[in-house]
Amino acid sequence: MADNTFEYYAGKRVLITGGLGFLGSTLAIKLVGLGASVSILDGMIEDLGGNFFNIEPVRDQVEVCIANLNDRSATTHLCRDKDLIFNIGMQSSHLDSMEKPLYDLELNIIPQLSFLESVRTANPTVKILYIGSRAQFGPVRKLPINEESPLSPADIYAVGKQTVEWYHLLYNTICGLRSLAIRLGNTYGPRHQMKHAKYGVQNFLLRLALEGKEIQVFGDGLQLREMIYVDDVIEALLMLGANDRAIGQVFCIGTHEKITFVELVQTIIEACGSGSYRHVPWPKERERIEVGHVDTDFTKLETLTGWRPVTSLRKGLKQTADYYSRHKKYYWS
Amino acid sequence: MADNTFEYYAGKRVLITGGLGFLGSTLAIKLVGLGASVSILDGMIEDLGGNFFNIEPVRDQVEVCIANLNDRSATTHLCRDKDLIFNIGMQSSHLDSMEKPLYDLELNIIPQLSFLESVRTANPTVKILYIGSRAQFGPVRKLPINEESPLSPADIYAVGKQTVEWYHLLYNTICGLRSLAIRLGNTYGPRHQMKHAKYGVQNFLLRLALEGKEIQVFGDGLQLREMIYVDDVIEALLMLGANDRAIGQVFCIGTHEKITFVELVQTIIEACGSGSYRHVPWPKERERIEVGHVDTDFTKLETLTGWRPVTSLRKGLKQTADYYSRHKKYYWS
Repeated sequence: MADNTFEYYAGKRVLITGGLGFLGSTLAIKLVGLGASVSILDGMIEDLGGNFFNIEPVRDQVEVCIANLNDRSATTHLCRDKDLIFNIGMQSSHLDSMEKPLYDLELNIIPQLSFLESVRTANPTVKILYIGSRAQFGPVRKLPINEESPLSPADIYAVGKQTVEWYHLLYNTICGLRSLAIRLGNTYGPRHQMKHAKYGVQNFLLRLALEGKEIQVFGDGLQLREMIYVDDVIEALLMLGANDRAIGQVFCIGTHEKITFVELVQTIIEACGSGSYRHVPWPKERERIEVGHVDTDFTKLETLTGWRPVTSLRKGLKQTADYYSRHKKYYWS
Repeated sequence: MADNTFEYYAGKRVLITGGLGFLGSTLAIKLVGLGASVSILDGMIEDLGGNFFNIEPVRDQVEVCIANLNDRSATTHLCRDKDLIFNIGMQSSHLDSMEKPLYDLELNIIPQLSFLESVRTANPTVKILYIGSRAQFGPVRKLPINEESPLSPADIYAVGKQTVEWYHLLYNTICGLRSLAIRLGNTYGPRHQMKHAKYGVQNFLLRLALEGKEIQVFGDGLQLREMIYVDDVIEALLMLGANDRAIGQVFCIGTHEKITFVELVQTIIEACGSGSYRHVPWPKERERIEVGHVDTDFTKLETLTGWRPVTSLRKGLKQTADYYSRHKKYYWS
C-alpha cells in the first residue's frame, strides 16, 4: 500500500457497520492504527459474526454502538459527521436464506434500505463502500468472471446482495451519495466466527482440523477456489475508500493463487498439524447452491489502485491457525 | 392464438393478483371467455390501477378478494387449489420509487416474497407467471435487447422488479415452483388508470388529447418507443401460461412497429381527433431515469409460442380512445 494511501485516513471519521464481525473488526483495528476516528455499529445478532473480543486490541479507541441497521435513531446519529462509511453488516448464510427467505429479506434488504434513508437524511453525499459478494454472479458460465459478467444469483442471499448493491449505486442519483461496491469472494483469517458452518465454511474447516476431526469433502473436491487472506481484503477496501476515482463503480477482487477445494483442505490440515479428510457425496441443499469453479479477473481493481494480494495461502492459514490456537475460548463456544 | 391454446384454459382454476388493474382485469375477462374459473386478488391501493368497473363485463363470473399480497391468510386460501397464477399486482411508479424507496420496497418486494411463502405453503408446485418490466435492463448500451442483455436497473422500482423475478425463479429450487417471467415494455389500451401520469404515461397522454389539452414532449422526442396493445400482451401471457416448456425461463416481449415518442404523440392526437403538443426541456427527475431508445428482440417468445403482435398502433389507439370516450366517468375522477 502506497504511503499516501495510509495518510488519507489520519483524522478521518469512519463508520463501520458490522464492525464487531470478521471484516469489520479487522478493518477497525487497521484504521485505528492509521489514525482514523472509528465508530462501530453492530447488531450483535445471534449466529452472526459479532464478537467483542474481535476489537480487543482497540477496545478503548473506538466508539461502539450496538443497534440494528433498521434503527433510524442510531443510524442517523452515527452517519451524521462521517467522512466515510464501510457498510459491511449482513447475514451471510446462503443455506439459511433458502430455508427462510423472509428472514434474509428482513435482515439484509430492509435494514439496508432503511440505513440508506438515514444516510440520505443525515449525510447524503458521504462516501460509502458497500461490501457485496461474488455470489451475485451465481453459477459461472464463462471464466474468469469480471465486473461485466452476467448476474445470475443462485440463492436468496445472493439476490439480496445484488439488490442492495443497486440501491447503493442508485442513491447517487437520489441524493448524491458517493457510493461504490466491492464483490468479495472467500475470505479467511483471524476473527471469523467459528461456531457453525452456516457461512464462512472455509474458516470452519480450520476449526475441525485444529480439533483433530475429519473434514468432509463433497464430491471429488476438484472445484477451483480463491482464498483471500483478510489482511489483503482490508488493504483493498482501504485503497478503494481512499480513491475518489472508484466512486460509482463496482469492483471484483480475487487472487492469482488458484487451488482446488481438496487441496485447500490438505493445506488447512498441514497448517494446523492435525485433522483428516474424506470424500462424501454432495448433500442436496449444498449442491443446489454450489457455484462451481471460482476464477476472478481483478484487473479493474489492480489497475485503479495498484492492489495485489500478498499473503500466500500457506502463510495465511498458518497465521489463522496460530490465532485460533491462542484465542480459542473466545470463538469456540 | 392456436385453437389448442384456447382449450387449455377451459376448467382451469386461475388466480390473478392485481386482477382489478389494467392487465389483470383484461386477462380476467379473456379467461372467463375461455371457460376458466377466475379468482382475483387486488389490494385496491390508492393511486394504483384497481378499478371495479374494469371487470364489469364478468363481475358475476369471477371471485374477487380485496386483500394485500402481504395478507398470509388471504393468499394462502386463494393459492390453495389453483392450476395457474398470474402474478401481476404491483406499484408501477418509477418516480415515486426514487422519492420514497422504502414505499417501493414495502409495496413491491416484501409483499411479493410473503406471497411466495404462501404459495410455498399452500401450493408449492403451482405454475406461476410473474410480470416483470423492461425497466430491469435499465439504460440500454446495445440494441436490440433480449433476455441475455445485461441488467442495469436505473431506478428503485426496476431493482425491485428484478429482485422479485429472481425470487420467483429461485422458488423452483426452494419448493419446486413452476415459475416463469415476462418482462413487459410500454403497454397501452382500455382499463389503464387515467387519473395521473405517475406511471403508464403513454396512456395518460390519451386523456390529455381527449380533453383537447396540450401534450408536453420532453426534448426532441426522438427516442424510439415500442407500444404494445393490451390484447396482444394478454395473448402472450396466455400462450406462455399454457406452455410447459416456458417454465423456468424469462421472456422479453416487443413489437416490430417502432415509433419515436413525438410520432406516438402525433398518432394519439390523430386517434382522439383533439389535442396538441409542444416541445419542452427535460425535467430533471424524468431525465435521470429515462432509458433512451427501446428496441426489443422477442425471438425467444415468438419461437416458443408463435406469438406475434397483431394490433397496429393506429388501430389500438383508436379502440382505446373509443373506450375512454364511452366510459370516461369511471376513469377520470
